[in-house]
Amino acid sequence: MRHKNREITDRQWMHDFLDAVEHGTLATTGEDGWPVQRAVNFVRVDDAIYFHGSHKGEKMDTLTHDDRVSFLVVKAYSLIPSFFTDTERACPATQFYRSVLVRGRAVAVSDRGEKAHALQSLMGKLQPEGGFKPITADDPLYRSSVDGTAVIRVDVEEMTGKDNVGQDKSGEPADQIEKGLRERGTRLDCETLDAMRESRPAADPD
Amino acid sequence: MRHKNREITDRQWMHDFLDAVEHGTLATTGEDGWPVQRAVNFVRVDDAIYFHGSHKGEKMDTLTHDDRVSFLVVKAYSLIPSFFTDTERACPATQFYRSVLVRGRAVAVSDRGEKAHALQSLMGKLQPEGGFKPITADDPLYRSSVDGTAVIRVDVEEMTGKDNVGQDKSGEPADQIEKGLRERGTRLDCETLDAMRESRPAADPD
Repeated sequence: MRHKNREITDRQWMHDFLDAVEHGTLATTGEDGWPVQRAVNFVRVDDAIYFHGSHKGEKMDTLTHDDRVSFLVVKAYSLIPSFFTDTERACPATQFYRSVLVRGRAVAVSDRGEKAHALQSLMGKLQPEGGFKPITADDPLYRSSVDGTAVIRVDVEEMTGKDNVGQDKSGEPADQIEKGLRERGTRLDCETLDAMRESRPAADPD
Repeated sequence: MRHKNREITDRQWMHDFLDAVEHGTLATTGEDGWPVQRAVNFVRVDDAIYFHGSHKGEKMDTLTHDDRVSFLVVKAYSLIPSFFTDTERACPATQFYRSVLVRGRAVAVSDRGEKAHALQSLMGKLQPEGGFKPITADDPLYRSSVDGTAVIRVDVEEMTGKDNVGQDKSGEPADQIEKGLRERGTRLDCETLDAMRESRPAADPD
C-alpha cells in the first residue's frame, strides 16, 4: 500500500466495516487463467466471510478449480471536486472511500449446521428487522433449501483496511474540503463529513 | 449466466450504465497466482475503459505481469426483505442490482495526447460542473502531471450486463414488492421503483 497513512490495521475497525456494508466483490481465477469477478451479499462470522449461491454456475466452478480468492468491500464517499481546493488545476479531484480487502481461501461448506448458521447470520445482517422464521439446520421449513443452496466460507489469510477520507490532508486544504462539503450538503456529503471527523488523527500533543 | 432473463446484451444500455456509475473493481492476477483487486474511478471512451494511478504500486505491477483483467461495475438497489412476499420463509430475501462485467486486456497508455484525453474525459464524467482548466496534452499547467500519471486502457473483449430489478417476477410477488418498497419509501426504494418500471418487460401482446 503506497499511502501508509490511509492503512488500517485495527481488526475491530475492519470487522465493524464488514458488518455495515451489504455487498462485496469476489475475484477468482478461471480455468482459462482469466480473472473472474462476482458481486455477492456476504456476512462476516468471527474472522471468516460467508456468501451463498447456486451449486451450479461459474462462481462455484472457478472455486473448485482454484480456492485462492480476493474479496473486496468498498464504501464510496463523496466525490471531492478539484475546485474545493484549487481554482485552476483538475488534479486535486478525488473520491473519498473506505475499503477492506481480504485474501483468503474458499471452502464449500458441507455441514448443514454451519450452512444454516451462516444463512441465518446473513439474514440477521441484511434483514435485522426480522419478519421470518429463523433458519435452523433441522427445521423442515428450511431443510431442502439449506441442502439446495451452496454456502462458501472464505478463510481469511490477510485482511487490510483503507481509510481514505482526507486524513492525509491538513491545514487549509482540509478546511476547504470540509467547507465545500458543508455547502454542497448532499446526504452523502454529510456522511462523508462524519467519516472525516471519525478518522481525523488526534491533535498533536505539543 | 444462469438467469437468462436478467442478461443484457444491448451495448447502449451498458454504455449508459458505465457512464452513470463512478467506480468499478479491477481484478487481475498477481505474479504469485493470487487474484488481485482494486476499486478505481473510471471513464468509458467509445468501447474502452480508462482509469489512472501511480506508475508504481501493485496495480501496475500485476498488469505488466498479465494483461488479462476483469472489470466489474455494480449499482446496488434496495434490499428486498423476505416479508414483502412471504410471512414465514427467509428464502425470498434478496437485493436488486444492475451490473456490467468486462473482460479485457489492459494497456499502459504512453501517448500523451491519449492520456490527456482520457483524464479530461474522466473529469468530464466525475466533475461535470467544471471549475477547472481543461486538461490538454500540451498545456504547461498539466504537462508534468500527465507525464507523472499512469493511465491504463482496458480494451474490451467481452461485455455483459445484468439487470436484476425484479423483472423475472410477475403477478402477485411483483405487486407485493412494489407495495413494500412504496410503503418503506427510502430514497433508494424510490430509485429502485424507477428502475423496476424501466426494466419491466413490455406487456404480452395477447
